[in-house]
Amino acid sequence: MAKRHATAAVIGAGDYIGSEIAKKFAAEGFTVFAGRRNADKLAPLVKEVEAAGGTIQARSLDARKEDEITAFLAEADRHAPLEVCIFNVGANVNFPILDTTERVFRKVWEMACYGGFLAGREAARLMLPRGQGHIFFTGATASLRGGIGYAAFASAKFGLRAVAQSMARELGPKNIHVAHLVIDSGVDTEWVRQRRIEALGPDALNNPDLLMPPASVADAYWQLYSQPRSAWTFEMEIRPFGEKW
Amino acid sequence: MAKRHATAAVIGAGDYIGSEIAKKFAAEGFTVFAGRRNADKLAPLVKEVEAAGGTIQARSLDARKEDEITAFLAEADRHAPLEVCIFNVGANVNFPILDTTERVFRKVWEMACYGGFLAGREAARLMLPRGQGHIFFTGATASLRGGIGYAAFASAKFGLRAVAQSMARELGPKNIHVAHLVIDSGVDTEWVRQRRIEALGPDALNNPDLLMPPASVADAYWQLYSQPRSAWTFEMEIRPFGEKW
Amino acid sequence: MAKRHATAAVIGAGDYIGSEIAKKFAAEGFTVFAGRRNADKLAPLVKEVEAAGGTIQARSLDARKEDEITAFLAEADRHAPLEVCIFNVGANVNFPILDTTERVFRKVWEMACYGGFLAGREAARLMLPRGQGHIFFTGATASLRGGIGYAAFASAKFGLRAVAQSMARELGPKNIHVAHLVIDSGVDTEWVRQRRIEALGPDALNNPDLLMPPASVADAYWQLYSQPRSAWTFEMEIRPFGEKW
Amino acid sequence: MAKRHATAAVIGAGDYIGSEIAKKFAAEGFTVFAGRRNADKLAPLVKEVEAAGGTIQARSLDARKEDEITAFLAEADRHAPLEVCIFNVGANVNFPILDTTERVFRKVWEMACYGGFLAGREAARLMLPRGQGHIFFTGATASLRGGIGYAAFASAKFGLRAVAQSMARELGPKNIHVAHLVIDSGVDTEWVRQRRIEALGPDALNNPDLLMPPASVADAYWQLYSQPRSAWTFEMEIRPFGEKW
Repeated sequence: MAKRHATAAVIGAGDYIGSEIAKKFAAEGFTVFAGRRNADKLAPLVKEVEAAGGTIQARSLDARKEDEITAFLAEADRHAPLEVCIFNVGANVNFPILDTTERVFRKVWEMACYGGFLAGREAARLMLPRGQGHIFFTGATASLRGGIGYAAFASAKFGLRAVAQSMARELGPKNIHVAHLVIDSGVDTEWVRQRRIEALGPDALNNPDLLMPPASVADAYWQLYSQPRSAWTFEMEIRPFGEKW
Repeated sequence: MAKRHATAAVIGAGDYIGSEIAKKFAAEGFTVFAGRRNADKLAPLVKEVEAAGGTIQARSLDARKEDEITAFLAEADRHAPLEVCIFNVGANVNFPILDTTERVFRKVWEMACYGGFLAGREAARLMLPRGQGHIFFTGATASLRGGIGYAAFASAKFGLRAVAQSMARELGPKNIHVAHLVIDSGVDTEWVRQRRIEALGPDALNNPDLLMPPASVADAYWQLYSQPRSAWTFEMEIRPFGEKW
Repeated sequence: MAKRHATAAVIGAGDYIGSEIAKKFAAEGFTVFAGRRNADKLAPLVKEVEAAGGTIQARSLDARKEDEITAFLAEADRHAPLEVCIFNVGANVNFPILDTTERVFRKVWEMACYGGFLAGREAARLMLPRGQGHIFFTGATASLRGGIGYAAFASAKFGLRAVAQSMARELGPKNIHVAHLVIDSGVDTEWVRQRRIEALGPDALNNPDLLMPPASVADAYWQLYSQPRSAWTFEMEIRPFGEKW
Repeated sequence: MAKRHATAAVIGAGDYIGSEIAKKFAAEGFTVFAGRRNADKLAPLVKEVEAAGGTIQARSLDARKEDEITAFLAEADRHAPLEVCIFNVGANVNFPILDTTERVFRKVWEMACYGGFLAGREAARLMLPRGQGHIFFTGATASLRGGIGYAAFASAKFGLRAVAQSMARELGPKNIHVAHLVIDSGVDTEWVRQRRIEALGPDALNNPDLLMPPASVADAYWQLYSQPRSAWTFEMEIRPFGEKW
C-alpha cells in the first residue's frame, strides 16, 4: 500500500457505513481520522485497519459541538493535509407527527444537519487556502421525500442536502468537490435486519438483494473521489438492484 | 361580511405577506389570530381590519418557543374552532459559507423550520379531534434550491418543506389539508426594493412585473383554502408573469 | 350567465375531464369549442351545456394532425378571441417494455405529446398579437415518474411537461399564462372503476375518496385561470385527500 | 489488453462523446460496435482503436429505424454477448416556439427519444435471457429543465429520461442495470466552441474549466459500468467544476 501525505476525516464512523469508508480510504493510503461519540467503540476498526497496514486515528467526537468539530479537523489537518471529509452521522427515527417531541426534532436536526454544516464549513476553511479538497455528505431516501412519520428525520436530511448544494455551488469553482450521496434503500445492519423481521416476518431477509452492503457505500464514495474535476457529480443515488423505487 | 365561527391563525404576521393573509381571511369572516414578535407593530393591521368590519386579535409571539406556540393556538381555538393555521415566518439571509456562523445557522433554522414544525404539530393536535382543518406553510425559491450563500436559509426552508410533506402524507387521509406555497420570486417589500436598487441601480424597479404583491400571496392561500378535498394541492408555486426561472 | 366575447378551446373533450372543463368554462360565459375524435359523441355535452344556457361548438378533431389543430383553433378565434386553450388528450397504456411496440410508443406520443405541442404553439400564435391568453396542459403522475410498464405513456407525458415548461418560460413575460396541471391520482371514470375492481376485487370502490371527480379537475383549471398575473402558477398538483403518495 | 468475450454497442458514435465511449470500452477489452448515420466517418475512430490494440466494428445506422436498430444489436450479440448498450444520439436545437416546425419537433423526438426507446428495448430483449447487462442513456441539462427555445429538444430528452426510468424500475430486479447520465454543461466540441465565441466574444474560451471533455463522459460511463449490483446508480449528473448551476 502506497501511503499518501493526506488525511481523510470520517465524521460519524459507526459500525457499518462509517467503518467501511474508513477502511476504504485507509486501504488507499490515506491517514484516516475517524470520529464517533465514543472512541472506545472504534477499537475493532483500528485493529482491523492497522492489521491491513493502514493508518487510522480514532477520536471521541460529538458532531453537534462546534469546538469539537473544529478541533477534530484541525488535528487531522496538522497530521497531513485534509483532503477528504465525509459526514456520515445518521439519526433515523420515525414518529407520528403528534408524538414527535421538540426534543427529538431538535436532536435529530443537530446530529444530521447542524453537525453536517459545521463539518462542511470547517473542512472548507482548511481546504480553501490549498485550493483543493473533497467534502461528501451521506443522504438517504428521506433527503428527497418526507414520508409519513419522518417529519424530524426528513427535515434534517432535506436540510443537510441544502447545505451540500449551497456549498457545492460556492466551492466547486474553487476546486473543492462537494457531493451528496443518496442511499435509496435500507443498509445491511443488524438493526435494519431486526426491524425487517419484526415488520415482515422471518422470511423478510430471504432476498439478499434488498439491503445495501456498507462496503458498497464506501465504494461509491471512492468513485466520487476518483472523478476528474472536469466531470464532478454533485448528487449520486445508489440502490441495490432488487430495490423497488 | 358574514362572520364564521372559526379562527385562522397567522404565525409570522409581518408587515407584508402576513398582514395581507390576515386581511384576506378576516375579510372572509374568520376571526384572525395574528402573531409576531412584537404585537405593538400589529396596531395598524388591527385598525385596518376592524375598520373593514373584520375581527382580529394581535398577540406577541416568539415562534421558536414551544409553550408560546401552544398557548397562542390554544387561545385561538378557544375563541372559535381553529380551521386554518398559516406559518409565514421568514428569515432570509445570505452569507458565504465561511461567514455563516453557527449562531446564524441555528437561529434561521429555529425561526423558519423549527417554528413551523411546532406550529404545524400543535395545529394538527387541535384539528384532528374535529377531523378537519388547513395547515399551510410559506415556501420560497430556497425551498427547492440551495444557491450560493444560502446554506442557512435554504437548509431551513428545505427542512420546512420536509415537515410539510411528511404532515401532508399523514394528515391528508384524516381530512387535514397541508400545503406548501412556494413563492418563486422577490416579494414587493421596502427591503427588497432597496436591495434591488443597491444591486442593480436606480432603474431596477422600472419593471413593476418582477416583484410579487403580498396581496397576491394571500389570494393564493385563499385558492388553496377553497379547494374541494377531492382535489387538494400539496405544493403550489407562484411567480410574477415577468419572472425568469 | 353573463356571456363573454371570448372562446375557450378544449382539445380532448372526452366524456369525463374534458366535458367537465367545457361545462365549467361555458358556465362562466365563454363560448367553448370542444374537439374530440368523433364529434358525434359530443352530442350529450352540447345538449347539457345549451340547456344550462351556455354556448358550445362541437368539432371532430384529430389532435395529431397539424392542419386540423390549426383550423380548429382558427375557427374558434374567428368566433371570438381565443382566451383559453386546454389540451387534455390522454393515452394511458401500460405494457412491459418488451411488449411495447414501436406503433404504440409512437401513437401514444403523437396523441399525448405531439398534439400538445401543436395545440400550444397554435394557441400561442393566435394569442401573442393580442398579448394575452391562457394555455393549459393536463398532466398525470406519469408526468413526473416513469413507473414499470409506462415507457410509452410516461415518455409522452414527460415530453408534454417539457413543452409546457419551455413555453411558460418564453411566453410568461409576454403575458401568456402557460400551466401544467398534474393529476396525481386515478380519475373517477367508468374505465378506472372497472380496472380497480378487476385488480383489487369488488370492495375496491368502497372508499369514495380515492378517485378524483372530473369536475374537480375543471375547478382546478378555473383556479389557474383566475390567478392574477402577478402570481401565476406554472405547475399545480392535485390529488384526493385520501390518496397515498 | 485482456480481451473480453463481450460486446459494447455505442449508438450515436459521433466525433466526440460517442467516440470516446467507444475508445474507453475497447481499451477495456470489449469488442465495440459503433453505429452512426454514415459509417465512413468512423474510419479515424476505427484506425485509432485498432492501433491501440482494440477491436471495433463500424456500422452505418439510422437509430430512427426499428429494423436497423434490431439488426445492429443482433449482429453485435452474435459476435459476442451484448453486455453494454449506450444510447448517445443527440439533437440539440433551439427555436422560439412559433418557429418550431412540426418537422423539427418530430425529427428531434425520433432521434433523441424514439431511437433510445428502440435501442433500450432491443438491448433488453437480448440481455434478459442471460440475466445481465447494462443499458445507458446520455442525458443533458434539457433532460430536467425545459428552457426557452427548447420545446423540441427538452421534450425529447424528458421523454428519453422517462423511458430510462421505466426500464430501470422493470429491469433492475432482473439484473439489467439501466442508467441515465445527465451532462449538465456544454461539452467541448468544435461546434460548442464556435457557438460560445459567437455568443460571448473571442474571450469566451479563456476559461478551460467550463466545457466538459468528451473523455470525461466516457469515464463516467465506465464508473457506472463498474458499480456492484448492490449499489447501482440510476441517475448521475456530471458537470465541470467551474460550471454555474
